Amino acid sequence: MMTFGFNKLQFLTNPNSMLYSYSTLFQFTKNVFIKMGCSQKDAQLATTVLLSADIRGIDSHGVARLSGYVRLWEAGRINTQPSLKIVHETPSTAVIDGDAGLGLVVSPFAMQVAIQKAQQCGTGWVSVKNSNHFGIAGYHAMMALDYDMIGIAMTNASALVAPTFSIEKMLGTNPIAVAIPAGKQPPFVADFATTTASNGKLEILQRKNEEAPLGWVQNNEGIPTTDAAILKKGGSMLPLGSDREHGSHKGYALGSIVDIFSAVLSGAAYGPWVPPFPAYVPMPQNMPGKGLGHFFGAMRIDAFRPADEFKAHMDNWIERFRAAKPIDNQQKVLIPGDPERDIEALRMKDGIPLLAPVMNDLNSIAIKFGLAEL
Amino acid sequence: MMTFGFNKLQFLTNPNSMLYSYSTLFQFTKNVFIKMGCSQKDAQLATTVLLSADIRGIDSHGVARLSGYVRLWEAGRINTQPSLKIVHETPSTAVIDGDAGLGLVVSPFAMQVAIQKAQQCGTGWVSVKNSNHFGIAGYHAMMALDYDMIGIAMTNASALVAPTFSIEKMLGTNPIAVAIPAGKQPPFVADFATTTASNGKLEILQRKNEEAPLGWVQNNEGIPTTDAAILKKGGSMLPLGSDREHGSHKGYALGSIVDIFSAVLSGAAYGPWVPPFPAYVPMPQNMPGKGLGHFFGAMRIDAFRPADEFKAHMDNWIERFRAAKPIDNQQKVLIPGDPERDIEALRMKDGIPLLAPVMNDLNSIAIKFGLAEL
Repeated sequence: MMTFGFNKLQFLTNPNSMLYSYSTLFQFTKNVFIKMGCSQKDAQLATTVLLSADIRGIDSHGVARLSGYVRLWEAGRINTQPSLKIVHETPSTAVIDGDAGLGLVVSPFAMQVAIQKAQQCGTGWVSVKNSNHFGIAGYHAMMALDYDMIGIAMTNASALVAPTFSIEKMLGTNPIAVAIPAGKQPPFVADFATTTASNGKLEILQRKNEEAPLGWVQNNEGIPTTDAAILKKGGSMLPLGSDREHGSHKGYALGSIVDIFSAVLSGAAYGPWVPPFPAYVPMPQNMPGKGLGHFFGAMRIDAFRPADEFKAHMDNWIERFRAAKPIDNQQKVLIPGDPERDIEALRMKDGIPLLAPVMNDLNSIAIKFGLAEL
Repeated sequence: MMTFGFNKLQFLTNPNSMLYSYSTLFQFTKNVFIKMGCSQKDAQLATTVLLSADIRGIDSHGVARLSGYVRLWEAGRINTQPSLKIVHETPSTAVIDGDAGLGLVVSPFAMQVAIQKAQQCGTGWVSVKNSNHFGIAGYHAMMALDYDMIGIAMTNASALVAPTFSIEKMLGTNPIAVAIPAGKQPPFVADFATTTASNGKLEILQRKNEEAPLGWVQNNEGIPTTDAAILKKGGSMLPLGSDREHGSHKGYALGSIVDIFSAVLSGAAYGPWVPPFPAYVPMPQNMPGKGLGHFFGAMRIDAFRPADEFKAHMDNWIERFRAAKPIDNQQKVLIPGDPERDIEALRMKDGIPLLAPVMNDLNSIAIKFGLAEL
């Protein structure tokens, strides 16, 4: 299991985590996708998307999820040879049937369709059904940046979140990402769950046996709690805003919009019917659509004003906001995307830390597929 | 001033407020817009948009603002005979120069352009510069419903909100509205400021001399406070999420996206340079764009799937969410748009309550223009 090869760069302060180089994890992950039946090209793409989470510090959405994808594939819920089809379209829109493929493969295809539509008529909007988890929303939104476009990506997910006034899990953490190009400045990249905190952050607290701040979760009676393991006891996550007085109805509305754009527009399953990520959880009954849903948008900057003019103003916007008077000189104002870019620079240099349970998980996949352990 | 004519339907529990019929307020407001130099048609439209706030219970954005519009017009900052022009376009996009017109008039024009673009190529997206306050975002988004389209509306506004980690007012309350058609069910209509609470709610507490919940505002040192009048003492509003631990960086990102889509895409003023609503506040120096900015979207439902199919699923979505298990049987789960629709039904029947200061304000306008007092 935990062998100490050349690819362990160093221990982190946490003795249960070790650093792996991007290329080591890339090769390992790609081999797993190939063993699952993906083509070379799809395995390369799925790995790039999955690892973009690890590089950017969103550890819950990277290789830590690889074993989950494997189990979904074993359960026959992921098709690694999907035939991706546009099933409905207009000059600026499309609906894509993901044929139960990996969201990591379906989504870049859908985003490319949105980009092509935008090249033709200014903007492109694609809703996707019959897909699976797509990694981090930010990766897909950022695809638009190379084309001088604004990129938008969102997805629904299995229900963990209770609407305002409810104790029933009805929505996923339903993230939204928006990537906006700038000139000299790095791009503006917002990528966030429509809940107070992401499920990944909750899982980390749970693993460390620590408490969650009040406002993240509630128990099965709707009473706020600091128990980070409350989801296993009938509790639920709270929409961004935490409670009615602090605007949770806005977080609930945002999560609902993501669900409707991703799934009701496309024909995917929505609300409490979204297929669960853990393969051992039975599928919901009477599903009103197929698989997970995503929604992508691309807007050509020069469909609104000349791109260089826009970018100069984005630089001005970013510089002005960075210079906003801080509460405390130790912590300057950040632009969305700053923290992830800093982590990316660090991890591409020093390596990606994996916790012992994640390493064990990956090595058990290696054994299953006859691959070299990490 | 407060004369008791036939149009005062009854006192509310608050002895300082009286009820006026919609038609009374409509005629009064329309006459004011005509006195300001609007055409009959524009006065009719501006009144319809403005009063849609009063009907729906968003009192801060309705006739309570009329005197503010009058003062902006007196200061030469509103052009009541604007020449609205599309200054840039593609099949699915346009930028409109509002010619310093009333946002109440510019915005329905812009939304109509978005709708026409959607009729042609599936979706339409319009960014607007050189405009003014546009009333409630929900009105504009809801225009799309009649065409079996999803409507989206957002606007920037003068800076009241500090980004996460900052004490400087950099963003407006920058609302987002999304209207989604259903079948038998009423439409889904979300319309919310990207702050914890709207400025209107804060003003109401201030007027009543009541405290705000912690998490709505901070003082000039960035310390959370319950002082509802703190904005007058160097304080600032907080983005949705309230603090970093509860996701205020997400509210800050949302408000920023609204600002960029509305103003950096169009060429309006953005961030701290947005023109202030009170006419006595001097205009910012070195403005990087013209006036306020808005952003509108229209997406034809049948650009994604047959409209009747979509609507049947929206009915199912709405019915399932309404039936979500409540915390307390006294308060069922609401669908975005429910509270406003309930208030609308009540106010169209019983009348619209106005507080004494608002009545006084309106009557001083009447005197100024030689109109009959309310």
